[in-house]
Amino acid sequence: MAGDSWVLMVTAQTPTNIAVIKYWGKRDETLILPVNDSISVTLDPAHLCTTTTVSVSPSFQQDRMWLNGKEISLSGGRFQSCLREIRARACDVEDNKKGIKITKEDWSKLYVHIASYNNFPTAAGLASSAAGFACLVYSLGKLMNVKEDESQLSAIARQGSGSACRSLFGGFVKWKMGKEENGSDSLAVQLADEKHWDELVIVIAVVSSRQKETSSTSGMRETVETSLLLQHRAKEIVPKRILQMEEAIRNRDFASFSQLTRIDSNQFHAVCLDTSPPIFYMNDTSHRIISIVEKWNRSEEAPQVAYTFDAGPNAVLIARNRKAATLLIQKLLYYFPPNSDDLNSYIIGDKSIAKDAGINGIEDIEALPPPPEIKDNIPSQKYKGDVSYFICTRPGRGPVVLTDESQALLNSENGLPK
Amino acid sequence: MAGDSWVLMVTAQTPTNIAVIKYWGKRDETLILPVNDSISVTLDPAHLCTTTTVSVSPSFQQDRMWLNGKEISLSGGRFQSCLREIRARACDVEDNKKGIKITKEDWSKLYVHIASYNNFPTAAGLASSAAGFACLVYSLGKLMNVKEDESQLSAIARQGSGSACRSLFGGFVKWKMGKEENGSDSLAVQLADEKHWDELVIVIAVVSSRQKETSSTSGMRETVETSLLLQHRAKEIVPKRILQMEEAIRNRDFASFSQLTRIDSNQFHAVCLDTSPPIFYMNDTSHRIISIVEKWNRSEEAPQVAYTFDAGPNAVLIARNRKAATLLIQKLLYYFPPNSDDLNSYIIGDKSIAKDAGINGIEDIEALPPPPEIKDNIPSQKYKGDVSYFICTRPGRGPVVLTDESQALLNSENGLPK
Repeated sequence: MAGDSWVLMVTAQTPTNIAVIKYWGKRDETLILPVNDSISVTLDPAHLCTTTTVSVSPSFQQDRMWLNGKEISLSGGRFQSCLREIRARACDVEDNKKGIKITKEDWSKLYVHIASYNNFPTAAGLASSAAGFACLVYSLGKLMNVKEDESQLSAIARQGSGSACRSLFGGFVKWKMGKEENGSDSLAVQLADEKHWDELVIVIAVVSSRQKETSSTSGMRETVETSLLLQHRAKEIVPKRILQMEEAIRNRDFASFSQLTRIDSNQFHAVCLDTSPPIFYMNDTSHRIISIVEKWNRSEEAPQVAYTFDAGPNAVLIARNRKAATLLIQKLLYYFPPNSDDLNSYIIGDKSIAKDAGINGIEDIEALPPPPEIKDNIPSQKYKGDVSYFICTRPGRGPVVLTDESQALLNSENGLPK
Repeated sequence: MAGDSWVLMVTAQTPTNIAVIKYWGKRDETLILPVNDSISVTLDPAHLCTTTTVSVSPSFQQDRMWLNGKEISLSGGRFQSCLREIRARACDVEDNKKGIKITKEDWSKLYVHIASYNNFPTAAGLASSAAGFACLVYSLGKLMNVKEDESQLSAIARQGSGSACRSLFGGFVKWKMGKEENGSDSLAVQLADEKHWDELVIVIAVVSSRQKETSSTSGMRETVETSLLLQHRAKEIVPKRILQMEEAIRNRDFASFSQLTRIDSNQFHAVCLDTSPPIFYMNDTSHRIISIVEKWNRSEEAPQVAYTFDAGPNAVLIARNRKAATLLIQKLLYYFPPNSDDLNSYIIGDKSIAKDAGINGIEDIEALPPPPEIKDNIPSQKYKGDVSYFICTRPGRGPVVLTDESQALLNSENGLPK
């Protein structure tokens, strides 16, 4: 190492992901080892991602982290596991331009500063911890010149937040539960990249909720301890579904993909309900969105949309193609018109879907006809205000390093938040 | 038989019942044979019952039935099964006073008139078909001098509506699924009469709902066809629960009774959610009532209240004793005050519970303090209008014949509705 004045930084961007075969239940709480495999779709980081800058300097006095501009504690076991595992794999780093040389051994004596930022509202219940821990591990890995590949890094991110391991890849990702007691084979692999099936369009309905939700960590612990259905799901049902889902993705078979996604989301919520005390993540609005999609799918020759819900009331809707997505957004806006006139903040992400659907202003929403499949259900009720906003997006790429220093969240002079 | 002018009548009253270990799924659709045993509590007919008058006369031209004053068709298979099975067991009847003699053989040539009336709103989703078919079979059995006992009659009522078989007894009743293909051993037996555990108080919250519900007949068919969890529940889980529930009832062990009732209700709704398309019977109000009860139970040394939900959003709450019931009604009224000032129609059934709770007028509801167990959850929200009304009742007796002719629903002269 040279003098005390230098700061070395890496900035990376990591996507979030949505499980289509669900992870629910750990067989090991500390190592975060799941009771079954899971499969996810990575979401386009243009609309939902975490950006993290990690930096190292001999001037730092301790490991520190800022999340969305606010300093948070790194003392939790999950942060400590990730930091320890990454440091253990650190290698020599040389930056000739800056005259910096860090040897493998130096890393144990150096502290890091970490700043992380989500480009979506953290309160939205959109699994920010998945993207967050993936980005932490990925960026630290780059900073410390860790040689491990993405799958091996995923086994570290997994120890921060289980579903984080699936955010190390773009496209379609499987988290293999593994067999080893030390968790070394519980890691993510890419099933197909985001270009493999690029017709899919994803619409997220962020649902307004007055309920305080059970955290997924305590929720899945309670399910493991009390549900008599969970083990049957994990051992007998999910293994077959994983094979079917892999085949559906391989063949871009939307009918199977949609069916498997829907039934697995529902079964995850079923085991939550079978927990004591019962856990309810979906609310009446979630139920209504399911009914809208189920009714529409049934009225068509083939399913148009899949739905899946994580540990909260938000609906993640996957449309078979752009045409289905425009019809979907029309139906959703018909039932769930915005509470205010600000359409710009009611439909975010890829706004071109709404444009294609002919929605340019509030008056276009008011003019929407009732979906034809509910013709006989008169009068069709509307639920203004029950959805906070919609995010339009698509399957996306995995983590990337951002080389443009203007995107760094830490100051390159002192390693503190900009 | 004598001349054509006579009318012979029987009037009976039959209770409804609420399952505490649930019946969901048939192994035979026509005979209505279930996939598992179930256990129920019979509700006091003073508050919830069906009254049925059946009559026979050589002057009748066809079998006819009136429900709540309106003529309905008897052509359905379920009515036909009950009528056929009862007629097949008819015996000689003599009424010396009226000079009537009907032989066993005559019954196949005689038509019946039936009038039935529920003392509770039919739209309330309170399983009126259970009390209805039980009363039909019970009263016809009396009219036709059928020698079969209540258990054997229950196997006939079962063919009208599965849960009807459990309404042939008071107190605590088990419907044994049976093994025979012809259903002869799929019948109800009494576990204990209503005096065995007479401390229990039952409060039913009739929940307002905007959703059209899936009928239980088609709902359970879809669950049998599509849920991968149902068979595991029916074969592996329920048999053990049945034994535990029998023991809890035998020992009047409220902690076990409450726990089993709650988890079995939740598991029934879990398999509904595991159905494709998913079935939602509970809504946000149902979920809120569960949360109120779970939080309260957890704050006490022992559970105070059990909850169970059938194929709809209504909560059936079973309090361990009168003291617990008064506290329960206070908590419920705090969260769910009435929409109007008409308290008299907001709390029906046994009104003495509300009186004991100090609730004599709207002002008493407005003055209720927040339940102490939610002290830190500020501000505690109220949900005015989300409950339509409450029914206070208790475990009750089985079917009885009403000998007072003024209670008959048919005119003794012409066998037509009064």
